[in-house]
Amino acid sequence: MLVEEPCYLAALQTFALAGARVIGVPYVDDELDLDALEQLAAEHRPRFFYSVPTFQNPTGRTHDVAARSGIADIARRRGFRIVEDEPYRELRYSGDPLPSLAEYAPEHVISLGSFSKVIAPGLRIGWVRATPDIRPSITIAKQAADLHTSTVDQAAAAHYLASGRSDSALARIREAYAARRDAMLDALPDALPPGSAWNRPDGGMFVWARLPEGFDAAESLSGALSNDVAYVPGLSFYSGTPDPRTLRLSFTTYAPARITAGLSRLGASWGTGR
Amino acid sequence: MLVEEPCYLAALQTFALAGARVIGVPYVDDELDLDALEQLAAEHRPRFFYSVPTFQNPTGRTHDVAARSGIADIARRRGFRIVEDEPYRELRYSGDPLPSLAEYAPEHVISLGSFSKVIAPGLRIGWVRATPDIRPSITIAKQAADLHTSTVDQAAAAHYLASGRSDSALARIREAYAARRDAMLDALPDALPPGSAWNRPDGGMFVWARLPEGFDAAESLSGALSNDVAYVPGLSFYSGTPDPRTLRLSFTTYAPARITAGLSRLGASWGTGR
Repeated sequence: MLVEEPCYLAALQTFALAGARVIGVPYVDDELDLDALEQLAAEHRPRFFYSVPTFQNPTGRTHDVAARSGIADIARRRGFRIVEDEPYRELRYSGDPLPSLAEYAPEHVISLGSFSKVIAPGLRIGWVRATPDIRPSITIAKQAADLHTSTVDQAAAAHYLASGRSDSALARIREAYAARRDAMLDALPDALPPGSAWNRPDGGMFVWARLPEGFDAAESLSGALSNDVAYVPGLSFYSGTPDPRTLRLSFTTYAPARITAGLSRLGASWGTGR
Repeated sequence: MLVEEPCYLAALQTFALAGARVIGVPYVDDELDLDALEQLAAEHRPRFFYSVPTFQNPTGRTHDVAARSGIADIARRRGFRIVEDEPYRELRYSGDPLPSLAEYAPEHVISLGSFSKVIAPGLRIGWVRATPDIRPSITIAKQAADLHTSTVDQAAAAHYLASGRSDSALARIREAYAARRDAMLDALPDALPPGSAWNRPDGGMFVWARLPEGFDAAESLSGALSNDVAYVPGLSFYSGTPDPRTLRLSFTTYAPARITAGLSRLGASWGTGR
């Protein structure tokens, strides 16, 4: 199967456990390389392309309308299915919502969602939208994995959704997370070494950064940790050769002032006297 | 790994998915063949013996004190671990409670339990008792499987257990299930073909029966279904060569009168004019 490179770590682990052969599709800057997707699909004839199209983990990247249309065209032409994983779709703080990949190629897309990021991660409920031909296989795989999802969780989620409180809760979450994202983006110029680059996601939980030539995010982590601040080195998120200069920064857990303070400590951790 | 033959079906499926090599330890009548366990352990040097020691699924069989002590001795001598799966332990309707295998060989036993049969199957909570050396591996495997158990379920279970209601609820369950077991045992002589044999379990959910020479439980199932009564043919529960004359009868779902009526219909289904 094909994946975005880099890709959500737990997905890579799941595919490895299942014995899948996984090939990463590269990006050109923040855009998926559609020519590479077409070429890798022709060469490897994959059954699936796994994508987090909106505010991806770990990069915060989002496929724009042209990319979505292009991915769908390639899936139709090359005959693979797209597994569209959308845990972050509702966490948009700027820009306009985008159509799901399923709108472009409904017969080729399996869409996944989760309540973890919009209600609570303690509620172990997700959902899947699939074409009828694949539903029996999904049902059997689910039964083999855990027999069924907790009926207590399902009743709690149904009760919550029926209460009508989710819209206002989501509005509060978006407002809080937007302020945290902005605090991070404001502080990053002084927190990363000169020559670093990062993106400015319209939503989700993550900013993806790249340190300048000569830096290694995994090696620098111990310095950050000794300053009581952490990030995730990017290398774990690659199915192929990692870029050791990349790192993932998460902005949703703490209030803006704490993010500012943490990034100030990160800025002091690089040991270059800057 | 070694398993009881026959064995809980979902365990066999799980071991197959994990790629384990599974070898069944036979019974002599209703007693595990300890000589065979010793010999198979010497021959195959298994890492695990999976056992449902109390009111086993599918057979309702229970290892007595001598068998428990013998199994523990062999585990110590041959250096394998016992995975002791105990979902039915609390469902005892007659006879005295038996020590768990962990009491005989605490350093060799991983004990598993579940709230499914004593609180509710909708609450997806189990527990494991393991030696400290194996706990980190269990934690990693659990995280890989589902990250964590629903916190909603855990809070609901804690609330229920703290309420003190579980003892009286279990007493009601035991009383109801005992009456259902007795209704089944009373009706079986007229429900199975002459020459059939079955056991009389002290608890759990299942009676294990064996049809006379010339019968095949899988072939006879369609006749039973057309009389609106079902059982589970035994062949699915074998890791090795199945005994096609065996079947599992479950007695916990329906009230005694319905069990009596169902077994009367089963008796009419054998098509032998008896």
